[in-house]
This record gives sequence, C-alpha cells and structure tokens, in this order.
Amino acid sequence: MATQMHQHEPEVTVRDAFWMNYFQLIKKEMIPFQWAVLNDKAAITIESERDDATIPTEKSHVIENFKVAAGLKAGNHYGWLFQDSDLYKWIEAAANIVAIEKDEELIGLIETTIDLLEQAQEEDGYLSTFYQIDAPHLKFRRLFESHELYCAGHLIEAAIAYFQATGSERLLLVADKFIACIEANFGDEDGKINGADGHQEIELALVRLYELTGDEKHLDLGSYFLEVRGQQPDFYAHQLEENDRKGLKQGPKPVINIVYHQADKPVIEQDTARGHAVRLVYMAQAMAGVGHHKQDEKLIGAAKKIWDNIVQKRMYVTGGIGSTVRGEAFTYDYDLPNDLMYCETCAAIGLLNFSNELLKTETDSQYADIMERLLYNGIISGMALDGKHFFYVNPLEVDPQASALNPDKSHVKAKRPSWFGCACCPPNLARTLPAVGRYAFTQKSDEVLLNLFIDSELAGEQAGKPYTIRQSHTFSEQGRTLITVEKASSEQLSLGIRIPYWAENPVLVVDGEEAIADIRNGYTYVTAKAESTAIELTYTIAINELEAHPLVKADKGKVALQRVPFIYCLEEQDNGKQLHLLALTGAIRPRFRSDMILGDIVCLEAEGEMHVMEDGWQDTLYRVHQKPQTTPKKLTFIPYYSWGHRSLGEMQVWVDKEDAHV
Amino acid sequence: MATQMHQHEPEVTVRDAFWMNYFQLIKKEMIPFQWAVLNDKAAITIESERDDATIPTEKSHVIENFKVAAGLKAGNHYGWLFQDSDLYKWIEAAANIVAIEKDEELIGLIETTIDLLEQAQEEDGYLSTFYQIDAPHLKFRRLFESHELYCAGHLIEAAIAYFQATGSERLLLVADKFIACIEANFGDEDGKINGADGHQEIELALVRLYELTGDEKHLDLGSYFLEVRGQQPDFYAHQLEENDRKGLKQGPKPVINIVYHQADKPVIEQDTARGHAVRLVYMAQAMAGVGHHKQDEKLIGAAKKIWDNIVQKRMYVTGGIGSTVRGEAFTYDYDLPNDLMYCETCAAIGLLNFSNELLKTETDSQYADIMERLLYNGIISGMALDGKHFFYVNPLEVDPQASALNPDKSHVKAKRPSWFGCACCPPNLARTLPAVGRYAFTQKSDEVLLNLFIDSELAGEQAGKPYTIRQSHTFSEQGRTLITVEKASSEQLSLGIRIPYWAENPVLVVDGEEAIADIRNGYTYVTAKAESTAIELTYTIAINELEAHPLVKADKGKVALQRVPFIYCLEEQDNGKQLHLLALTGAIRPRFRSDMILGDIVCLEAEGEMHVMEDGWQDTLYRVHQKPQTTPKKLTFIPYYSWGHRSLGEMQVWVDKEDAHV
Repeated sequence: MATQMHQHEPEVTVRDAFWMNYFQLIKKEMIPFQWAVLNDKAAITIESERDDATIPTEKSHVIENFKVAAGLKAGNHYGWLFQDSDLYKWIEAAANIVAIEKDEELIGLIETTIDLLEQAQEEDGYLSTFYQIDAPHLKFRRLFESHELYCAGHLIEAAIAYFQATGSERLLLVADKFIACIEANFGDEDGKINGADGHQEIELALVRLYELTGDEKHLDLGSYFLEVRGQQPDFYAHQLEENDRKGLKQGPKPVINIVYHQADKPVIEQDTARGHAVRLVYMAQAMAGVGHHKQDEKLIGAAKKIWDNIVQKRMYVTGGIGSTVRGEAFTYDYDLPNDLMYCETCAAIGLLNFSNELLKTETDSQYADIMERLLYNGIISGMALDGKHFFYVNPLEVDPQASALNPDKSHVKAKRPSWFGCACCPPNLARTLPAVGRYAFTQKSDEVLLNLFIDSELAGEQAGKPYTIRQSHTFSEQGRTLITVEKASSEQLSLGIRIPYWAENPVLVVDGEEAIADIRNGYTYVTAKAESTAIELTYTIAINELEAHPLVKADKGKVALQRVPFIYCLEEQDNGKQLHLLALTGAIRPRFRSDMILGDIVCLEAEGEMHVMEDGWQDTLYRVHQKPQTTPKKLTFIPYYSWGHRSLGEMQVWVDKEDAHV
Repeated sequence: MATQMHQHEPEVTVRDAFWMNYFQLIKKEMIPFQWAVLNDKAAITIESERDDATIPTEKSHVIENFKVAAGLKAGNHYGWLFQDSDLYKWIEAAANIVAIEKDEELIGLIETTIDLLEQAQEEDGYLSTFYQIDAPHLKFRRLFESHELYCAGHLIEAAIAYFQATGSERLLLVADKFIACIEANFGDEDGKINGADGHQEIELALVRLYELTGDEKHLDLGSYFLEVRGQQPDFYAHQLEENDRKGLKQGPKPVINIVYHQADKPVIEQDTARGHAVRLVYMAQAMAGVGHHKQDEKLIGAAKKIWDNIVQKRMYVTGGIGSTVRGEAFTYDYDLPNDLMYCETCAAIGLLNFSNELLKTETDSQYADIMERLLYNGIISGMALDGKHFFYVNPLEVDPQASALNPDKSHVKAKRPSWFGCACCPPNLARTLPAVGRYAFTQKSDEVLLNLFIDSELAGEQAGKPYTIRQSHTFSEQGRTLITVEKASSEQLSLGIRIPYWAENPVLVVDGEEAIADIRNGYTYVTAKAESTAIELTYTIAINELEAHPLVKADKGKVALQRVPFIYCLEEQDNGKQLHLLALTGAIRPRFRSDMILGDIVCLEAEGEMHVMEDGWQDTLYRVHQKPQTTPKKLTFIPYYSWGHRSLGEMQVWVDKEDAHV
C-alpha cells in the first residue's frame, strides 16, 4: 500500500461565509440525517423521484444490506442495485467534513462502517450486497445494470477521502482488495470478462487513486475500462445470452439501449453528449484524467469535443444538463425545454469535475467559468437551505399545477423532498460541497491558477518549500479582490487570476502599483518574486441580461438575469401567479436583503409589465387577436439556488423581454 | 328483432367535392387496404405509435383471431385485447360506403365476416377472441382492461350501419345475442357483475341501438352502465382480488388508475374532462344521449359541464384533445403544449359525436362550430391524402429532429405511418368520414338545423310527407350559400341556418327578397311555407388571426390563422427551417393553388419577418442580450389537415405575432 502522495490535490482552507454555511449544514444536518436514513431510523417519507411505481421508496436499508451480506443478520436485499454507493458517498462526505475540522465521533462512525464493510467483503475482495445476498450466480454477469464497478468506484473515492482526512489506510485496503478482485475478473485475456460497467464511475475513481498512490496499475485499469467501452456494442446483450445458455436464472429479458450507456462505439469516437447525462460526464472526466496522465492527445481531444458540445449546445444557463427524464439523458443540440428538463444534481456535479479535470490539462478560464456557474447555481439548488431537503431534478420553470396534473412533468418537483427512492443526489452534494476548495485553485508544475473567487487560503509547495496564497473578496456595487502570495522559496511563482465574465473594467494593482494586465487564456498573470506580494483587483459588477442561442426555441424572446456567478429567477411569492404573463421592460437594480428564510441575499428589482387579462376571456379559449393590454409591474428576482423555500408556487428563470422578439 | 326505425338519423346525400373525394379514398384505398391488413396480407410495416417495446406491431391477426376462436384454425390470439374492434369498425366503414353507393362485392365481403362472427360467437352470445382463445377463465373478470364491452359496442355500431345500408338484420342478430349475454351477466342483482367496462363505448352504442329499434331495454342497459360507473371506485381492483381468491391465474398485479378510466366517482359528478381522452368523450356522448332520451336534466347538465370544460379550457385550436401521451389523457385547464400533445384522431371523432349528441338536445350553434372545427382540421389531419397513411397523434408543432431524438416526443410523428400497432384511429376515420352527412343537418320535432356548409341534400319527412333541403356553397373571396326547401306537406317548416363565426356581414335573401335575420342561438331562421322556398345567404369571408387565452402558456405572443373552417400552418417545405424564428407582421392574402400533391387548396400568404442569426453565435450558447436583427420574409400557410405530405420537415400552427407580446 502506497501512502506517499503522488500528486497533490490543492490543500485549501476555505474561510468564505457563503461556503462555510454549507459546510456547517452538511456537518450538522446532512451527515447525521443521512446516517439515520442509511440505518432506516429517519422519520421521513421517502419520495419517488418521478411517477413510476417500480421505484423502491419504502426505506433505505443500506446498512441492513451490508449486515445481511456480512452474515450478521438474515434477510433479503432491498433497494436499487447501486444502493451500496449511498454509504460510500456518505463516508466520503463525512471524511471531507473531518478534513475541514477533526471530529472523533464522526471518525468513530466511519470506523464502524469500515468494520462492517470488512465483514461484508468476500475472501476474494468482491463486495456488492445485492449480488452477494440475492444473486451470487450473477456476479459480474449483468454489467449493463449491475453497478458493481460503479459502487467499487465510489468505494475507492471514499477510501481516498478518508485517507486524506485521517491518514488511515483501512478503507484503502478494502478498496484495494476489491480492485484485486476486479483485476482478476476483467481484462482482454482469455477467460476474463472483456467489458465495462454500464454506469461509468470506477474509471475516474481509478485515476484519482493513481494520483494518490502513483501506482500505474490503477491508471492502466481505468484506461482499460475506457478503451473496452463500445468496442463490442453487443457486449451487454451477449452477457445476458450467455447467462441463458448457462441456465442462470435472470428474469425477463430487458431492453438495453447502448446509446444510453455510451457503449455503442469507442469512447474516442463519441464527439457529442449522448445518453444518460451522469454517466456521460463521469466517463468524460475519466477520459480527461487518463488522457492527462498518459499524455494521450486523442483521448483529451475526444473529451474536449464532448465538453464543447455540452457547454456550447446542450447546457442550461444554470449549468444543468440532461433535457429529458426518459433515460435521464441528453437529447440534441439546442433542445433545452425549461419545464421538462432533467438537470439532475449529480450530472451538474459530474460536469463540475469533468471541467476541473480539463483545466488541469489546459489553462483556459472557460472551464472555471463553467465550474463557477455550476457551483453557484445548478449544484447548490439541489439542496435546501436547511440541509435536509433535496432536488434530484433542477427545473428552470415550475408550475406546481403542472407537476401535479401533467404526468410528463411528474419528475419536476416544486418543493425539495426530504429523500428519494434513488438517493444518489443528496450524498453526492454532501461529498462535493465540503471539497469546494479543491476547485478554487489549480496547481500546475509551472503556475498556480486562481479559479474561483472564494475567501480561502492555498497551502502549496515550490521547490520543496512552502507557499501560501490568500484570497478575499467584496461583491457590493463594486467588486474588490485582495490576494496575498507568501513564499519561502526564492524562485518566482507565476499566479494566474481568472477574470470572470461578470467583472467589467478590471484594474490590477500589485504591491501598490497599477500593473499592466498580462491576460492569457482568461487569466491575468502576476509573477510573485518577493517573499510577500500583495495583489488588488477591482472591477465593476455587471448585471447581465443573458439571451440564449436563437435555436433554443424555449428561450426565444426571453432573457435570464445574472449577477456575479448567480443566475436569477422569478418566484410567485414575490411576483404573483402566472409568471409567464410578465415581461422585463426597464432598468434592473440590485437590492441587498436579509430574508428570514433565504438569509442575506442580493435580489434584483426590475421595471416590467404584466399582460392584463380582460373580462371577455371568461368562457373563451380562442378569439380574434387583439393588441394585448399591459400594466406596469415591478419584478423581483432572487438567486436561482434559493428558489422553492417559501410558499409552494411558480418559478421561472427565463422571462420575456420587451425588445427580444423578432 | 325490431326493424322499424324509431328515430331517424338524417338521411343526407352529400355532393360536396371535398368530401366525395374522401368517400372515394375510403372506398378505393382504405377499405381494401384495411381488409388486407386485417387478413395479414398488406405489405406494410406496422409502426409503433410511440416508443414502447410492449406494443404489438408484428401483424394485425384480426381475422386469424376470429378463425381460431371459431375453431376453424389452431393457434393463439395475437394483438391487443381490443383487436376485435378493428374488424367491427371496418364493417361499419364498409357499410357506410355501401350506404352511399351499393357495392355487391363489398357486401359479399361483409357477409363473409358475418359468417365468421356467427361461427366464433359462443352459444350464450359471448364474443371476444382473446378471452375465448387464451383466457376463458377470465371472461368479464378483468374489466379494467378487457375491452369486452367496448368491442360489443363497436359490434353494435357496425350492425346498425349494416342494417341501415342494406336492411340486413344478420349482424344485428349477432349483436343482440351478445347483448343478451351481457344482460345475463351484468346488473345490480345478486350474482351479477355490478360494474362497467374500463373503456366506455357500449353505452353510446346502446343509445344508438335504442334510436334504431325503439327498444327501451337497450337504453336502460346503456343507462345502467353509466350509472354504475364510479359508484364503487375499487370495483376494478376488487375484480382482480376476487380472481386471486378463486385461484384464477392472471399474471402480475397491474397499477389501476381510476381517474384514467373516469371511474373514481359517479359520472354525474364528473364536471371536468379528466383521464383518457377517448374514453371521456365516448362516455360523455352516452351521457348526452341517455339524458336526451330519458329527459334526465341532471345527466344532460353533467354532460354539458364536461363539454364546456373541454371547449373552453382543454381543446387545441384544431379541435384536438388530450395534452399528454401518458395515459393519452387530459391534464388541466389551459395546459395545451403544442409539441407534446396527444390529440388522438379517435378523441377528435369522439368529440364530434359528443357535440352532435348535445346539439340534438339543445339548439346552439356552438356545438356545430366545434363539429366543423373538428371535421375540417383535427379529424381529417389523421388521414393522408392518399388514404393509406395515418396519424394517431395530430401535433400542432413538429420538428422531425425532436421526434427522433427527444424521447418525450417519440409519439409525435412527422410523417403519417401506414398502420399502427394499436390500429384504432384509421378504421375510426373510415367509418366516420362516409357518414359526414349525418352531421350536416339536425332534425328535431319542431325544426331542422343546417349545421355544416356541405353541398348536400337532406331527405326528411314532415307530417308523413316528404321534404328535401338542398344546400350548395361557394367560398371564394366572397361566400355564397344557396338553399332550396321543397316540401309536400302544407305545414310550415322551420329551418335554422347556422351563421358560422367565419362569415361576416351575412345577408339573407328569401325568395328574392332581403329578409330580416331572425337569429336565435347562432342560427338564422327561415320559415318555409310554400312548396318551394329559395334561400340565398351571402357573406364576407374573414381571415382570422386567432389568439389563445392568456393562460395558455404555449401560445403566448402567437396567433393561428383560420379561413372558413380551416386552421392553417407553416411548413418547412414552404418557409424553410427554424419556423420558430418567423413572425407575422403584416397583411394576409388568400391564394388559390393547384398543388400536385395537396390538390386544390387555398393558401394564405402573409408579410412576415425572420430573426437573423448573426455569426457570433457559432460556439456560444448564452451571451449578453442584444436587440434582435430581423429581415422581411414572406410566409406561406397551408390548411392544417394537408401538412406532412411533402418533404419531411418542421410544421407549426401557432406563429409569433409582432404585436402580440406584452
């Protein structure tokens, strides 16, 4: 077991009030809450994420499943095939919280779960409670849906996080044993299974494990799973046929959609974002990671094509991805319906990590732009401000009546439920948000990038000597960023500071003197030569009315408001019912507001108008067109992430703009 | 067997070129074509009506099913539980064609099918091939889905049509025998099944049989099925539980949605249109019919509430109904998405018959307005101009890319397929269109209504003496209608002529003298006193830009064009791709066009503009809003029913209107 760190993830201490509030929510609310859920002790109603009677919603049963697998209890498996991953994500979340602030009680809980995992794990390293309990004859034999390697991936990520937080190798040993089992069973040698999991995840986890340990076999195994994917489009179907031939009982024949699995052609030939959105971005992150470490330009190029396709043609303005609930999937270029979309929280997290991975390879602020857009909008919208309610689907337009009465929108919730039958998103948030510092900086061999404007401190190392970079920010009418670089080495340190698209007229002052901006790839560079360098960046904060590409039908004639990284929305609570009858006509002003529920937020107030519904409409559905009557109306926008916390009502991101029509 | 007619359906001879073309299509193309399909001899690909692997699409097998049931062949049942109704509708269609023009060969074919039905029918009258062949132990025991009474209803309607066309009682005898079987099994007496079919149809068929025969037992049985519906909301579930208790094998437990079946509460308490659209309108037609004949004001009132709810809040501008594919159902008031809707052809036909039924009870031109809107738009759009291709779903906005790549729209076809796995719609069109004359006039005890402007002749009877009413029309820039009433009786005849909403400034001339319009309930009345009365009605034909109620989100800022009863649409063929970038800005003119494919049609040409897509959009999805650039563009509209006949492309009914935004 290698414990020496091969490649550091940035060690960042976050001091930003906005994010520290999330850390506290996750520590105080979410982790204990999810622990209770995993143990079936939470007094909650588990809600189905959409109108589908086959979704298991009775209980979580995760700990019970492991106990049954360990032989500590009798019983059957309950829940999804990937139910185990809920626990692994919980461990990763808890470990990331421990990394922020040591917590012996939480470490104790994690240790208990590791005891259980050790007991449940089989001699050969296999660990997947469903197959252990209910279908041992089908281990690794139904990879299109089994999620065995997907769960292994989350186990690996949990083990990395626990090691990074505590230095303990216990969970890494469990993961290593499972990896040995996987290596013994998978590969292109005769007698081995030559294929990959239907849900990508182990690939990216193996890249991360390689980064931690430097052990090439992990990178090679991750690379293998990428390479084998889509080489034999019939692989999953063949597995099922082979099971039938061998007389292995496996239930009715399923319909396998290999595009959904991104398994219809080799990954390097996949140049658009297709199929299940979470799977796609997990796969693409692994492509970028393997490509980076193996210096495989083809793989990096393929990953970039996918990224470009997403952000240039298939991403909502909140960073959300996935245009349809059917297959939780991408559809086609510019198809971004606001009221039907999926925008799964997990997919947004996946796109964050994918973007971050590409940034390691290529210095370009566009990756950080998207990371920021995701973190402040489409990701945190997934969690309520109480830390106890969650969105799986993050809509851009909601009408509670439609969610209740039009089954095409049964997946579009108007309130965050407390838990889901498929509980992938809440623990994904819990593991990601405490690690937000990871995205604030990127350390490269020849430069450090400051990506996100988060009050924080990076502790790095240069030529064997330590350095720190501190950043702090003010975003009132005017923006001001202070950065201090302190270093022990006498060598120069090149710091790239991202100039975000919302910062206008930036002025850079280094050690008290205005500096000529040296902007490359969206970053302005400062070379720190002295022991201590003080950098000040000031800029005007624009309030943007964003418009979408003309081929996005759903947004025609509409704009979305944005200030600093926040996308805004209208809510019924502030603007009344029938938000679609409102239009933006005039000036927009920020208003700082301390809201009982929403906390300290910056609202946007705008001049607008409302379509007046005349009396004649009572019993009439269609009539000869008359010029519409309008009345002036003040519009109030709140940050998108904070919607859905007050009374049940309509919400809308895109709003009609008076002059935006042809 | 009563063969004396109790209440005449109007005997109308249609001479209208527009409709006679459809009669010919149905006679020459559709009836032989469907006959081949029913016999599995048509060389066609049967298309699934939506993306659902469980839909049977291999073949029709209808005749084979009857042969197996009759013991003439060995084999299993294939197809839907309601597959038998395909044959019954075919017979009704063929009979309606025979009624127009005697055709011995066709009569011969019908007689052959009656031979087969007689052989397949069991001793006690039971006739439902699926249950006879594959599940005799479940006869009448799974009414939520069995369609046994639904098929009986179509058998009755076929028998009526065949009797009316030929005077033959052969099929009526088969129907009567089945009814006797149903009467023996259903009712509120002990030991009988006290419930109704999951799919309404027999109710309306029994009303029609009562009208033909005057036999009260048919009206009472129809009335019973309406009354029992929804009295015991658990009825369908109880049936399945009882089967389990009795050890009757019946497969996995289904999810039963009693709102889908309109069985959650008594029908007279159902005041909105909910659930499966076809079922709802079939039920409501029966409510209006039973209410009319039993003079049950409550039942009529309930039917009217449903009708009002549909046409005032839940109907597309084409007359189409059903806002979602999931459950082929209504959703909620003003929820009318143009690209997701269902608008099943059968539902449009059902609404036509429901409206016609209410018109018998209440003289009000609104019913005829809707009948006309349906016939000229949402019904005939279901059949291609070649008579060989059909829409199940009649969308108001189509993008072939969306249909292919967004699974939420897999049911929205951009081309009419030749047949469907569920073949309810094509034969429904085939039986309805030849009977279009039935809707042109309504005969009441004290008046005759001229509802539809179709060149035709009504042969009626007054005080035991014959009369005829002939109507003929010209719709060029100016509209002109000539009506001649000739009667043998010396009594006065009161004729109400509907003034349609598209006829402006009507001028009425009776026997050469301008008459003062006596308009009541949307009809202008002429009292024919002499043996012969000549009536001339002239009017201006308006081209209307219709707008939808402001709460119809999907139509905000848009208009739909209408001339005479036709609703118009834009097609890519005439206007290029990206129809959503077009807007109407100026005058609209009719243009008479003889099109190779579309035939003689009146197009509408309008001044419009197109949103110009600047170069900057290449790799950008969102940008800061700029005032849109436009370029003038001539827009060409064709009648909605004729869309989808040329190259595969986009179609759009609702188009942006320059001044229609707030």
